[in-house]
This record gives sequence, C-alpha cells and structure tokens, in this order.
Amino acid sequence: MSARPAPPWSVTEWINTDVPLSLDALRGKAILLHAFQMLCPGCIAHGIPQAQKAMEVFKGAPLAVVGLHTVFEHHDAMTPTALRAFVHEYGLRFPIGIDAPDPSGDPIPRTMRAYGMRGTPTAVLIDARGRIRKHLFGRIDDMVLARNLEALVIEASVTARDEIAEKTAAKGAACGDDACVTRP
Amino acid sequence: MSARPAPPWSVTEWINTDVPLSLDALRGKAILLHAFQMLCPGCIAHGIPQAQKAMEVFKGAPLAVVGLHTVFEHHDAMTPTALRAFVHEYGLRFPIGIDAPDPSGDPIPRTMRAYGMRGTPTAVLIDARGRIRKHLFGRIDDMVLARNLEALVIEASVTARDEIAEKTAAKGAACGDDACVTRP
Amino acid sequence: MSARPAPPWSVTEWINTDVPLSLDALRGKAILLHAFQMLCPGCIAHGIPQAQKAMEVFKGAPLAVVGLHTVFEHHDAMTPTALRAFVHEYGLRFPIGIDAPDPSGDPIPRTMRAYGMRGTPTAVLIDARGRIRKHLFGRIDDMVLARNLEALVIEASVTARDEIAEKTAAKGAACGDDACVTRP
Amino acid sequence: MSARPAPPWSVTEWINTDVPLSLDALRGKAILLHAFQMLCPGCIAHGIPQAQKAMEVFKGAPLAVVGLHTVFEHHDAMTPTALRAFVHEYGLRFPIGIDAPDPSGDPIPRTMRAYGMRGTPTAVLIDARGRIRKHLFGRIDDMVLARNLEALVIEASVTARDEIAEKTAAKGAACGDDACVTRP
Repeated sequence: MSARPAPPWSVTEWINTDVPLSLDALRGKAILLHAFQMLCPGCIAHGIPQAQKAMEVFKGAPLAVVGLHTVFEHHDAMTPTALRAFVHEYGLRFPIGIDAPDPSGDPIPRTMRAYGMRGTPTAVLIDARGRIRKHLFGRIDDMVLARNLEALVIEASVTARDEIAEKTAAKGAACGDDACVTRP
Repeated sequence: MSARPAPPWSVTEWINTDVPLSLDALRGKAILLHAFQMLCPGCIAHGIPQAQKAMEVFKGAPLAVVGLHTVFEHHDAMTPTALRAFVHEYGLRFPIGIDAPDPSGDPIPRTMRAYGMRGTPTAVLIDARGRIRKHLFGRIDDMVLARNLEALVIEASVTARDEIAEKTAAKGAACGDDACVTRP
Repeated sequence: MSARPAPPWSVTEWINTDVPLSLDALRGKAILLHAFQMLCPGCIAHGIPQAQKAMEVFKGAPLAVVGLHTVFEHHDAMTPTALRAFVHEYGLRFPIGIDAPDPSGDPIPRTMRAYGMRGTPTAVLIDARGRIRKHLFGRIDDMVLARNLEALVIEASVTARDEIAEKTAAKGAACGDDACVTRP
Repeated sequence: MSARPAPPWSVTEWINTDVPLSLDALRGKAILLHAFQMLCPGCIAHGIPQAQKAMEVFKGAPLAVVGLHTVFEHHDAMTPTALRAFVHEYGLRFPIGIDAPDPSGDPIPRTMRAYGMRGTPTAVLIDARGRIRKHLFGRIDDMVLARNLEALVIEASVTARDEIAEKTAAKGAACGDDACVTRP
C-alpha cells in the first residue's frame, strides 16, 4: 500500500498523560490524531466532543485518541496555561500534546506544518503501522468517522496477529490463533 | 459462533422496492433491520433519520438497510395508506416492509413477535450468513451503530471471499488472495 | 388600528377540550393559532413543540394556544382517528380543532382557506379584540414568537382594564388601577 | 415598586464600544446584562449565543445587551488579550466590559460581587429606571427570556412617555399621546 508514513510529532508539553506519546510507542494501535485550537468555535462545538466520544465508544479497542493543540493564530491568547484551564473546564480526558512553535517565526507550528494541515479542526487517521490513511478537515459526521476508525481497529488486530506470526516464524516457533509454542 | 439465525420476515406489502426482500435474497450482505412505527416520536426524531443516514454512509458497502413497520398499537391510524403518505412526506428512500398482522388477533405483528422485539425503534443487526448479531432497543448513538455495521460489512467481505474459496476448493480449484486457478 | 378581524373557525371536532372553542368565547385573551398537519415534518420538528412550550411558558397569562389540523393533502392518511393517536403518542395538551373539509371538494379545508394560509406550519397571532396581528409561515424563532406573544398579552391586560373602565363609565361608575366602585 | 437599584459597573476596559457604558448613560432603556467567562462551557454553548440573538431580535427596541466578563477562576488564562481573541473568533458584536479585579485579592471581581452573582452564565434584567428586575443563573429558555425582555421594553417605552409628560408638565406644557405643545 502506498500510504504515507506519518511524520513524527514535535511536542513541547503533554497534558493528560504521564509519559510523552510518540508514533513509535503507539505502533500496533490505530490513532485518531485530533488537531484543534482552544478558541476555534468548530473545535469546541464539534471536533473536541467527537474525539472525547470516540475515546469512550472505542474503549478496549486498539485505538489511541490523541489531541494536538496546533496554535497558528492568537498565540498570546492560547498559551499552555490557558490550554490547561480549558482542558480542566471542559473535562477533557484524552492526552493532548502542544505542537512546538516554529523556531524561524512561522506562525504555523511544526507538526501542523509537517502534516500539511489546512486549519482546525483536523482529524488524521493513522494505521497500526504508522501510516496516514485519512486526513479530514472541518466537521466530520460521527458515522463516517466511526466507520473509518472501526476499519483501522480491525486492521490493527489483524496486523498484530500477523506480526506475531511473522516474528514467531522467524524464530522457528508455531502459532495458532490463540497461542504460540516455541520449538526446541 | 452461537449467533441465532434470524427468523424470516412476514411482510404483507413492500414500499420503495420493486421486488419483495428476504433474508435469503440478501445473504452475503450485512443487514440493518430498522423496526419502527410512523407515530412513534423516538422513531421520527432519531431512529428513522439514522437508518436513512446509514444507507448513505454505507453506500457501496455490502450492507442492506431495511425498514419494518411493526404496528402494535393504534392499528387504525397507522394503516398502509397512512404509511405511504408518511414515507412520501419524509422522503424516505430505504425499502420498508409492512409487518404482517397476527391472524389470531394478537396486536403484535408476526415478525415483531418472532424477533422478540420490546418496542420501537428497534435495530437488529444481521450478518452475511443470516444470523442475528445485535438487537438494540431505543436511541442508539451514531458512532456505536457505525462501529457495529462496519465490523459486519468487513466480515461480509471476508465471508464472501471465503465462500468463493470453499466452493472453488470443492470443485478442485486453487485460490490465492486475488485470483483463482482451476486445476486440470 | 387597521388589523383585520380574524375569520371564524370552521371545525368539525375538538380534541383536548370539553367545550368547543371560538373566537368569541376567547375574546379578551390573545390567541396563538397554530395550524399544522400531523404528517408535516416541519410541524413535528419545530411548530408543534413550540406551541406546546408556549402554552407552558405563558401559563397564567391571558393567552390561549389553539391547534388547528388543516389537512390539505393525504386526506385518507390524516384522518380524525389518526390525529387522535398522534395527539396521544406525542402527549399534546393544547386544544386542537379539526378544520372542516370544503363541501365543494376543494382539498384545502375551510378555515385554512378563509385565513389564506400558504401551508403548514402556520402561526396566526390574534389580539384580545379578535383581530389578526401577525401571520407567520414556516419555522419561527422562539425568541421572536415570545416577543410577539408577550406584547399581545400585555395589550390584552390593558384592553381588559380599558373595557372595564368603559363599561363602568357608561354605567356612571369610577375605576382606579386596581378596583372599581359603582356610583349611586 | 421595591426593585433594588442596580449597582454601578466597575469595568477596567470595554470591547466592541467606542465609549464606556454605564447604567446612567443607558437610563431609559431596558438592559440585558450577560455575565460570562470565556472558558465557561455553558456560556459558550448557551448564554453567549442567546445574548447575541437577543441583540438581533430586539434591534430597534429600547434594549441594551451588555456583556460582562466576570473572571473568578483561571485568571491567568482568561486575560484581556485572550478575551479579545475569543470575541474575534466567535464574532461577538455586543459591547463587553471586563469586570475589575478586587484590589484586596478576592478572586471574585468587583461587579460580580456587588451583584451577588452565583457564577456564570448569569443574566441580570435591569429596567429603564435602573432597577434589577430579574436575576437568572444558568441555562435560560429563549422563550422565557424573550417574554421578560419584551415586558421591560414595553415598560421602557411607557416610562419614556411618562417622563416626557412629567417634565413637560413641570414646564407648563401639554402633551397628548402623540405630541406635546408648549404653553405660552
């Protein structure tokens, strides 16, 4: 498949997670990367509640919902301090990374630029092998999003099984659907 | 798997389809069977628009959205004539069967009774092999429904491939993922 | 003022009221006349819930909310029997009159024709003296409707006071803001 | 009437108005004072859009819609800079005052304290004579708010007429409903 590898995330600070997240650490799971700004009306009305709901509906499935605060305007209003207050007031529970400012003074932050996002909200769907499979801008229908996520989640399960089988085969082991036995 | 085979549909009249539908004729497709009454407020507010949207969102996928008018109260108000006017006014496009009245005078119509439905709206998810996989009563979240439908649709595709493989194998043929070759 | 007198209502049957209603009987109150059809999607989604809410919000004020079932299409579907089932299922509590069919075969019923309504939902605002003050077609904003109703309700209170004063004056009595005394 | 005089506003900065507003300057108009915080979910979802709509629906009527940014938590997130970005992104057009911080370090700002507000959103309805007539906390129904505002607006018109009459009478003039004549 020709899907493009997802660029790494440049994040200065993480909220709602004890450990920094990365594409490598999430390999094996599908990812819903939800890029937003805290003062973007469409994000507050639709995108953010949708990401929150996806996390609940796909609980237990191999899906990671990850927020990305991609501030490209009003930088002095949407500070990390303001974002933390926002996350608290809205009761957001998914992990959120703060996209790193561009060192050369470009108002568009680094991850947003690397992914070529048009604005906020943007949802990027990344598969279990770390490849971008969909890039969605603006308001997305719940049913359309869930279709796409479920397909990636099923694929992630199949991928996981195949990778175990590949590794085991390489080691000279034998695997059934539920268990693997090492050969002598 | 222990899923129960879906009982056949007892329908007196079909709307929005030139040919009567049946489980056998739809074998190989997942089915969203949406049971409703035209004077049920929850059906009008949530269930019917959701069935209509599912038909659009899953267009091209192996999914059949089928309505079932299961009148169990106000029989003299929700007549076939009234239903046709309702379908016209609301612009419904999915096929709708009228559940057959019980000949013994039970107010609950025959298919509704056979499926053990509690009321309306009810959504029954049937897999490509004709088995009931979910039975959902009342208001259903769009994301939850779409997750379930996508899983059945993917399964339907796999089932189709497997059945071709089985039939071909039975005939002495060999199939790979993308093609089959007949053996001499 | 040049407001047009509201034409009388031609109604074959009343629901949710023990006594037939009429403009004359409601003189002294403002009236929200809500014309609808039970199979009109805009009526079910907006108009009918709005009429129901107006009745609750203006409880205790001199306002009568009156429904009028103005069937101008699908006459064999929207029968009085069907309407009664509809009113029951939706839990409507305001009085509803069934607009009388035209004896000459015109599909538009008599009151609807007399008021020159374009379709459903239509709201007609009638003042305490029985005059049409507003004629609103389609979806109406709650705030806009409430502004208009409150103005008529205040006017109704003033009208009532003035009419008492006029009658009393004619009889040789004297009225203050809160009470009237008869003169010898 | 025993309505309490509205306390004066302590505001450090005004947005969306060239001149600072005050109760005295608005005497003769009804006032909808809408107290909010830019990171308060209920304000964004209901209160602020309602204030914006009230301004449009009551355009031309003697009603002033005035916002008040009453920050009582997350002071370092909801700065004047952040508020200006918020007002820009949401396209708010009503004038907004920034409630003055308490000099003694109380987190509750001065006007909020003087009015005894419980939180945000709060709507305070002030009549044309500068008296508090309603104090509403939380989500308010559009119809309920519009009823109250229309009553105050009508009262403001009557008040204005009466005040003109009083002043004119004091000057020895004579006024009818539509015009006043000065006496020699």
